[in-house]
Amino acid sequence: MLIKRFEQNPLISPNNLSPSVEGWEVVGTYNCGAFKYNGKIGLLVRVIERPILDDPDKVAAPILDFSTGERQLKVKTWPRDEVDVTDPRFVKADVIYDAVMNHLRLAWSTDGKHFEVEPTPILQGENDLQNLGINDPRVLYLEDEYTIIYTANSLWGITTWLATTTDWETFEHKGVIFPPDNKDVALFPEKINGRYCCLHRPAGVYFGGHDLWLGYSPDLLHWGDHKLVATRRPGMWDGERIGCGAESLKTPEGWLQFYHGSDGTNYYLGAILLDLNDPSRVIARTNEPLLAPQEDYEKVGYYDNVVFCNGLVRLSEDLVYLYYGGADKYTAGAEVSISDVLNLLLG
Amino acid sequence: MLIKRFEQNPLISPNNLSPSVEGWEVVGTYNCGAFKYNGKIGLLVRVIERPILDDPDKVAAPILDFSTGERQLKVKTWPRDEVDVTDPRFVKADVIYDAVMNHLRLAWSTDGKHFEVEPTPILQGENDLQNLGINDPRVLYLEDEYTIIYTANSLWGITTWLATTTDWETFEHKGVIFPPDNKDVALFPEKINGRYCCLHRPAGVYFGGHDLWLGYSPDLLHWGDHKLVATRRPGMWDGERIGCGAESLKTPEGWLQFYHGSDGTNYYLGAILLDLNDPSRVIARTNEPLLAPQEDYEKVGYYDNVVFCNGLVRLSEDLVYLYYGGADKYTAGAEVSISDVLNLLLG
Repeated sequence: MLIKRFEQNPLISPNNLSPSVEGWEVVGTYNCGAFKYNGKIGLLVRVIERPILDDPDKVAAPILDFSTGERQLKVKTWPRDEVDVTDPRFVKADVIYDAVMNHLRLAWSTDGKHFEVEPTPILQGENDLQNLGINDPRVLYLEDEYTIIYTANSLWGITTWLATTTDWETFEHKGVIFPPDNKDVALFPEKINGRYCCLHRPAGVYFGGHDLWLGYSPDLLHWGDHKLVATRRPGMWDGERIGCGAESLKTPEGWLQFYHGSDGTNYYLGAILLDLNDPSRVIARTNEPLLAPQEDYEKVGYYDNVVFCNGLVRLSEDLVYLYYGGADKYTAGAEVSISDVLNLLLG
Repeated sequence: MLIKRFEQNPLISPNNLSPSVEGWEVVGTYNCGAFKYNGKIGLLVRVIERPILDDPDKVAAPILDFSTGERQLKVKTWPRDEVDVTDPRFVKADVIYDAVMNHLRLAWSTDGKHFEVEPTPILQGENDLQNLGINDPRVLYLEDEYTIIYTANSLWGITTWLATTTDWETFEHKGVIFPPDNKDVALFPEKINGRYCCLHRPAGVYFGGHDLWLGYSPDLLHWGDHKLVATRRPGMWDGERIGCGAESLKTPEGWLQFYHGSDGTNYYLGAILLDLNDPSRVIARTNEPLLAPQEDYEKVGYYDNVVFCNGLVRLSEDLVYLYYGGADKYTAGAEVSISDVLNLLLG
């Protein structure tokens, strides 16, 4: 295997955390952004939690209510037989609700393998377009500050947001960078031909589907000049949906992107190599996944059989630590050599 | 009625046009952008056409193929009983195809009521992301040139594109301004607080749906800082989907936008008034539609019971000519007084 799982896996489990709300339970701690700060490795972890219900005949969905001008966490409940919970992650009632509330917490490590998770949320839903919470952050140190790109779910759609920080205590919130439905947005670590560039994953309702696109920006807030980068490969491990992971990595051979693919059941990790000057041009792509759900913490969780990486730390020119979610429940890690992956892609 | 239909309606019908491809038929000429140029009123009309099939047991879908590097118009055919044509606008086979090919033509008038349509397309699908054709243009004269924003359908999703022209003969193509799925993008006629602004209509796959949003841009190509403007009103004429029409009109009371709404069956025209300084703030909105499908050319066509306006010309401070599609088949026109609509909205 080119990708070597850490033997400490899973690095973070729900039972390492206290819920942020009394009487609730933490269901998952996964899909983290990753970065270096003050000699430590930091993770910005997606945390999902839900109220514990006494009555098994009821189902609940948490929602943030800003109608009074204040942030209020509310819980909607329904008799179980009056709603559709075929997919237990969602409650399909008058509209679709998320069965859990999402927020982000920080975790810190000196070795990249043993993490201490902060006891309270650092970022959470703060407005009506985030009323189902925020998730799946990407973190990149760019031009003397950390850019944080995260996804917000709301009753009005899935949007992508930009924030920055220098100290991980105060944040500057920049607004929505992609309207519904888009997610899996990750930057390239430098400007390309004078503009910032990102990969993103818009969703097609009628034609098309969940493919990999890129966009350019003069300022990180406004995005355009979108190009289609890569499409699903029907019948393969990335036949149903694909999307990018963390930032792309600059190599002499091109931009190396560890991306996720799904065959409609499982989520896998693969790699794609993009032209340095025109990253909409694909040079090579792994035919087989580099990482597939195999360990217990990847196979059984909140959503089974998922490995999903949206955070990495480049420790040297060649060595990368990948941080990934297992089964939408656990945070895990692995290491990989860039040259090994390039050899596979170009060999 | 505040909106007075022209007695010359419909202004353009499919039988006024020759097909652009021998052996094909023109099915619709509708949903036009509108503008003033050289003392005339111009329309940039959506034209849909399809091959005439000899065999009633077959269905066809036209598609543009750029795989050789050349633009090739191809027609895919299937036995009728092997595909889903429940909605005759689409052929649902391995993926969803459009049953017609879309292009844009110019039409000219000296009085705004009698139009002559040019015999050939002026803009059409020119790349793989436009392989199902282009449609629903918005035209605005802005800073000494015409900006054209149009929608392209493709097997990779619905995207929105920007082009400019000064002479309606040569065009500068700027690229994709909104990735899938977005459409119904129309500018405000001037910068707001230093940035260009547009209304747009992203589509939500999971949460949310077809609501009215706005975005800002420093340069018309890159868009961000998106805000939700208005949502569907369940049970009303705009309960299922809403989207903007042509450019918003500056009035002393706010930005006046003639927008479309659907109750899931019919498409209607209504009006919404937005704050001059913060157009994401709604001041007023019509409770009843201003225009509903009523005439034959609005009730029976390629898709029945539709009025859909994406073009207008402001003839004076108060007088506006609205150009709208009827039943996805005809181009029609109407006049309206801005002060009448403001009185209704604020009365």
